[in-house]
Amino acid sequence: MDIQKTILNQVQEAKAAALKLALVSAKDKDAALKAMAKALWIHRAVILLANRKDVLAGKKAGLSSALIDRLMLNDKRVEAMVDGILDIAKLKDPVGELLQVYKRPNGLRIEKVRTPIGVVGIIYESRPNVTADCAALCLKSGNAAILKGGKEAIYSNKAIYRVLKLALAKTKVPVQALQLVEFTDRAAVTELLKMDAFVDLIVPRGGESLIRFVAENSLIPVVKHYKGVCHIYVSHKADLKKAEEICLNAKVQRPGTCNAMEKMLVDVKIAKKFLPLMIGRLREAGVEVRGDEATRRIVPDVKKATAQDWHEEYLDLILTVKVVRDVYEAVDHINAYGSRHSDAIVTKDKKEADAFLKGVDSACVYVNASTRFTDGYEFGLGAEVGISTDKLHVRGPMGLEGLTSYKYKIYGHGQVRS
Amino acid sequence: MDIQKTILNQVQEAKAAALKLALVSAKDKDAALKAMAKALWIHRAVILLANRKDVLAGKKAGLSSALIDRLMLNDKRVEAMVDGILDIAKLKDPVGELLQVYKRPNGLRIEKVRTPIGVVGIIYESRPNVTADCAALCLKSGNAAILKGGKEAIYSNKAIYRVLKLALAKTKVPVQALQLVEFTDRAAVTELLKMDAFVDLIVPRGGESLIRFVAENSLIPVVKHYKGVCHIYVSHKADLKKAEEICLNAKVQRPGTCNAMEKMLVDVKIAKKFLPLMIGRLREAGVEVRGDEATRRIVPDVKKATAQDWHEEYLDLILTVKVVRDVYEAVDHINAYGSRHSDAIVTKDKKEADAFLKGVDSACVYVNASTRFTDGYEFGLGAEVGISTDKLHVRGPMGLEGLTSYKYKIYGHGQVRS
Repeated sequence: MDIQKTILNQVQEAKAAALKLALVSAKDKDAALKAMAKALWIHRAVILLANRKDVLAGKKAGLSSALIDRLMLNDKRVEAMVDGILDIAKLKDPVGELLQVYKRPNGLRIEKVRTPIGVVGIIYESRPNVTADCAALCLKSGNAAILKGGKEAIYSNKAIYRVLKLALAKTKVPVQALQLVEFTDRAAVTELLKMDAFVDLIVPRGGESLIRFVAENSLIPVVKHYKGVCHIYVSHKADLKKAEEICLNAKVQRPGTCNAMEKMLVDVKIAKKFLPLMIGRLREAGVEVRGDEATRRIVPDVKKATAQDWHEEYLDLILTVKVVRDVYEAVDHINAYGSRHSDAIVTKDKKEADAFLKGVDSACVYVNASTRFTDGYEFGLGAEVGISTDKLHVRGPMGLEGLTSYKYKIYGHGQVRS
Repeated sequence: MDIQKTILNQVQEAKAAALKLALVSAKDKDAALKAMAKALWIHRAVILLANRKDVLAGKKAGLSSALIDRLMLNDKRVEAMVDGILDIAKLKDPVGELLQVYKRPNGLRIEKVRTPIGVVGIIYESRPNVTADCAALCLKSGNAAILKGGKEAIYSNKAIYRVLKLALAKTKVPVQALQLVEFTDRAAVTELLKMDAFVDLIVPRGGESLIRFVAENSLIPVVKHYKGVCHIYVSHKADLKKAEEICLNAKVQRPGTCNAMEKMLVDVKIAKKFLPLMIGRLREAGVEVRGDEATRRIVPDVKKATAQDWHEEYLDLILTVKVVRDVYEAVDHINAYGSRHSDAIVTKDKKEADAFLKGVDSACVYVNASTRFTDGYEFGLGAEVGISTDKLHVRGPMGLEGLTSYKYKIYGHGQVRS
């Protein structure tokens, strides 16, 4: 089959369906989501059978046990998918929200109203639950979805997709609003990324190399984040007990996440007091600590940090520590080496906190809290499509609203321009 | 001089300056804008001299008289530039606006606050006043500006740039926040568009070919509109007197603009009555009318429309007319052939208006008014950076707010994630 022709056909179908879906009521969209959830549960045997094929192929191909675990489905995980869709159904429909009204001197009434974006392409890697999750998020926000999963999960994704389409057939949501790209080679991604006449947004979800590939090859706007190199700065005006708890939590509670602390900056005025204690606790929790010269003068057995360490996202129990002069050096360091994701200051001083909040050019800037809170659910957005470290359209956690645009509706009574 | 090295140096300077500029107060930014305006007026002789060089070179190169006119500056046009900057100084500073507050059950207070984007690149064509205008818009919104003008205006742009930098030197706005790319070949644009590590947004302003080149070659997000193929649909439920005035205004008041009507759709139920009158008035105003078969059966001397006509933006006194069955056919036609810019319906029926407003997938959708109102000033946005037919970040007229992003400031008292 011709890759380009098949995908073009899919995105054209999706675009036509998106125009219809934009007019479907919240009630009918929610009914469709519930039908999707129900169908997944009823047909779980088919899905689990397909998933077994992926798992076997993955083992044969020598995938790591961590990857196999991400790939694997069971009754409990299907139930989690089902619950995820039902949770999305419960959220408020963002479409139609009146965002602003301008009344003009000439009598024109201009309404800025939230709309779906249109056709959203999501490109992701191994976990098959993303297929159901993204389908639900897109349809809830009135968007047609083009899903392109990883080749490791292709049988699972196809099975989930067929079940969801079957469910949609009996609802007011057009079946064509959901499309799975079934080709497994990267050429399929490249073709999709050229179809800017039909696809309005691409969201890549996965490792940095996938995201870079998408960003560099896309004619379609991309919302993305490459990595999270999150910092915590502990000021000499910090409550040091709180600082300890915050840093420990941000590093060890779930080190593999993008909002975990990767670098700790410590005010020179408290470094001698704070560092031995803090590093002791981190090491108790299994953290390997690296540091600059000043850190190593205070805690000599800390491993020497390399130039690369300041940029690196470990996603692991590793931390690099730097002693800094003051909040301004901390801000400059973060802006130079950070990833614009999430950074925190621990301080009791309001002025210092303010300098940090204003000066650090990141999506989420914290005072006296763990960076681990950067998350759509924790922010109260109800759902998370992803996290953006870009500054356009959406920055930080991307909820359902991140999948919307707006239009202006202008009401006149014969106005012409003079 | 090495193009790549020079531009890289400029964008790096701009990025560092942007971090400082983000902290400059509204008062200090406005003082800088006033200094820029003043300097332009004081040094206008230098600017006009440089402009004469561009005009002479343009004439030698055989530029059309329309292009020479766009290029030419005189005292009055410098005064308009000065007034433009002073108007921008008077606008409210968008930076720092509190957009939303989320109070979380765990006691976290999350503030969503408007920020500058960072470094904005603007790529434009002949008119040298764009240099001053874009510099002012970017600085007002706290962004460093990388300006790349057309080669026809290079002497004028350089002179304006030097005067503006001179003015900034005595203000709190860092001089490096303003950068002009002085290379005149397209290779300079290509290099700039790769520097996504330092530039956050590109706004191309000019003809469709420039904009396509930018969109296809940019690693940096682009806000753009290719063209405006604006439609007006006249329903059988329209006040036909109003329909006449609206269509005439939208076509002839300034046919060279992107919000002028290019296609007129007429309800079959009133076509026989409306078309002869309307086409008569359009022709009186010098408009060449093209039409589909149904139109030509009613007004036989109308020129036959080609397949290309339905897509084309004439920017001239030309109009193509189609007879349609009802509002739904009108909506489908607009979504298939339009440019997602501005489209209008003339009708007295509220339900029909609503079907049109919801169904047409364009940035601005009008009821009973001329499409010519799509404009930042007419919308009350205070200024216009450009118009977007994209659906991400900004759609429709782009005011100062379109040059901003946001960040989350999260206030805690020791919260950690469990």
